[in-house]
Amino acid sequence: MSDPRFDRRATRVLERLERLFAIGPAPHATRPGLSAAEDEAHRLLAGWMREAGLAITVDPVGNLVGTRAGRRPELPEVWLGSHLDTVPAGGRFDGALGVVAGLEAIAALDAAPHRGVALIAFREEEGARFGRSCLGSRALCGALGPGELDAADPEGTSVREALVGSIGAAEPPSAGWLPSPLPDCFLELHIEQGPVLARAGATVGVVSAIAGVHEYAVTFEGRRGHAGTTPMEGRSDALVAAATLVGRLQAEVAGWDGRGVATVGRLEVRPGAPNVIPEQVRLSVDCRAEDPADLAELDRLLAGLIAAAASVQGARGEAELTWDSPPVAMDERLRGVLDEAVAGAGLPLHQLPSGAGHDAAVLAGAGVPVAMLFARSLRDGISHTPEEETDRAAVADSVEVLTAALARLAGVA
Amino acid sequence: MSDPRFDRRATRVLERLERLFAIGPAPHATRPGLSAAEDEAHRLLAGWMREAGLAITVDPVGNLVGTRAGRRPELPEVWLGSHLDTVPAGGRFDGALGVVAGLEAIAALDAAPHRGVALIAFREEEGARFGRSCLGSRALCGALGPGELDAADPEGTSVREALVGSIGAAEPPSAGWLPSPLPDCFLELHIEQGPVLARAGATVGVVSAIAGVHEYAVTFEGRRGHAGTTPMEGRSDALVAAATLVGRLQAEVAGWDGRGVATVGRLEVRPGAPNVIPEQVRLSVDCRAEDPADLAELDRLLAGLIAAAASVQGARGEAELTWDSPPVAMDERLRGVLDEAVAGAGLPLHQLPSGAGHDAAVLAGAGVPVAMLFARSLRDGISHTPEEETDRAAVADSVEVLTAALARLAGVA
Repeated sequence: MSDPRFDRRATRVLERLERLFAIGPAPHATRPGLSAAEDEAHRLLAGWMREAGLAITVDPVGNLVGTRAGRRPELPEVWLGSHLDTVPAGGRFDGALGVVAGLEAIAALDAAPHRGVALIAFREEEGARFGRSCLGSRALCGALGPGELDAADPEGTSVREALVGSIGAAEPPSAGWLPSPLPDCFLELHIEQGPVLARAGATVGVVSAIAGVHEYAVTFEGRRGHAGTTPMEGRSDALVAAATLVGRLQAEVAGWDGRGVATVGRLEVRPGAPNVIPEQVRLSVDCRAEDPADLAELDRLLAGLIAAAASVQGARGEAELTWDSPPVAMDERLRGVLDEAVAGAGLPLHQLPSGAGHDAAVLAGAGVPVAMLFARSLRDGISHTPEEETDRAAVADSVEVLTAALARLAGVA
Repeated sequence: MSDPRFDRRATRVLERLERLFAIGPAPHATRPGLSAAEDEAHRLLAGWMREAGLAITVDPVGNLVGTRAGRRPELPEVWLGSHLDTVPAGGRFDGALGVVAGLEAIAALDAAPHRGVALIAFREEEGARFGRSCLGSRALCGALGPGELDAADPEGTSVREALVGSIGAAEPPSAGWLPSPLPDCFLELHIEQGPVLARAGATVGVVSAIAGVHEYAVTFEGRRGHAGTTPMEGRSDALVAAATLVGRLQAEVAGWDGRGVATVGRLEVRPGAPNVIPEQVRLSVDCRAEDPADLAELDRLLAGLIAAAASVQGARGEAELTWDSPPVAMDERLRGVLDEAVAGAGLPLHQLPSGAGHDAAVLAGAGVPVAMLFARSLRDGISHTPEEETDRAAVADSVEVLTAALARLAGVA
């Protein structure tokens, strides 16, 4: 540890993450958006914010903001933060690390900043409860679609009803609601959720871009037949076509040297009996790349491989785009500030794309300059499970880098 | 049509198959074993047997036997037959063709045979109701396992209880029960349920052997990961491993020139979410070959491909043999008799294996010499559906060949 100050702060971060993890019955870290468990996490955080001398506000969707005033209150603020909700049986670090470590960074500022600084804990980022991710940050940016507040969880509770329970909101925001002025810029620290930094021997990394995602529903239609009485020759086996696609897609994209990833995570066979040649296979293809040109190339590659795989089996192949989120660039100036902070802490500089979406992407979509810092994951990057792990050194380095970047952006140094 | 006698008989066969098909509510051809619908089919057949002058007996599991006495009653009989039960929403021909056309062959004998001849309609061949195929023929051969009469259908009715309803059996047979002496030999006519004869332009074919079946449950275990944050390099994707197996198995066995078939009909992915790299895939592999050496070679090929597919992905691959029925050879003498009958009818000789199991295999297992004749399927061999189809010429040729073979075996000519 180069700086014992940040080691002590890392200890407090890890203790607080453990307290958040312990909320609710086992399995822990089950804090769906706008649930009693998420509410309890927000109450805990509000207490820690008060201890740190921050002024607290709660916006109409329950996002919690703690502000340390600047010497020039007329200037837009610098924001840090992330989210406190989790997927069911999630991990200690996803979301919560960025919030709790962000609080340490604000507290670590030596003097009153030029600009005001604020820590924000967004509501319902995961989308695990209502099937709509980044509800809190999208509401804050006026980016809620029509009817989204009426979306219901599996028990039939709507976002609107849950808000009343969570924050006592008599009048939740209407779609398109735009609250207080957006900040000057936004920094989000997050656990990597992947193995890249650990493999590189780095504790932290600066995010180059948030990858764009194209998700497809692919269908192959072949011809059903008896497994015993239909010769291999002349079969039209929908599963063989699908397997050809899965194998070739993996082999092709593995040769892209990190420019993109493609994953088939769901695959269903009909009729699905051991002695019947499959007549239909439906599968998902998740394509991601940080460069829009690479994402377009993945689209073309996929279309070609589907046609080729179908053709060899005399089957029909079709793809429907079911999710389309474009790549989000990180702000150049902010990346530069993070790079300098990393170098200033004596750490090796490591850049990497974010393969997952984050609240930062929503703010970027609203025109806010954003940047992200990743803390390394252990255990091969496993995430969305209690086994998610990072280490004290990565936490301490994250707080140190975030503090230096914040000091620079808010005008302390 | 070479012989108008058989054309008229084909007309009657097709009419009777239509009457059997019409039993019960739509969808037709739903005659589970020991059901009221199968009972009604047996009553119809018993009437047709009486019209043809056959003496009727019903054995203790409800198999219906119609006998035309021979001049030498002390000699074992020659049997023809198949089954009248169907899968749910089955076809017109599967099972019923062999029974109804067999009756025509016995009726077509010009003179009293040397040996007695009998037509048998076996009960519950498909196994669709109790999950146990060839119940009737296995009971007749003393090959029922312990407790099989207590096996229950999804409504909880046991075989024993269903027998009481179907045939009023106060005392169904105990396991291992062996009824009247087994026949001298057994011929079974069946619809091919495959495309081979139609592709070859043949109406009928002589079965060379009933293929052996090895069914495997294969499991690949990889490592779960986030689809967006886990680089392609270093993934352990269970579905990519499975896809590699499916593709290579198909490619290898397609080069076997008909010596065997291999089919993956079921495949399940866990966790099965579009943005999660699959950690487990379970799939079925159905391997069939008529030569035991080829079946053993399929076993070895599969084991090698599983190991190779797992190894490339750093995954674990395992296979468990879940079904093992050895190949059943057809009797050489009987095959010769069928070949001569085919040639005598002026038809091209075509031999082919049976990829599906049949009652004939059960009788062969009990030491009875058996042979099978296939009538061609249309519509690419589709079966176990009302779309199952064959044509009048194939039916007429089947009756003609069966009649000639029966005359030869029973000593009429």
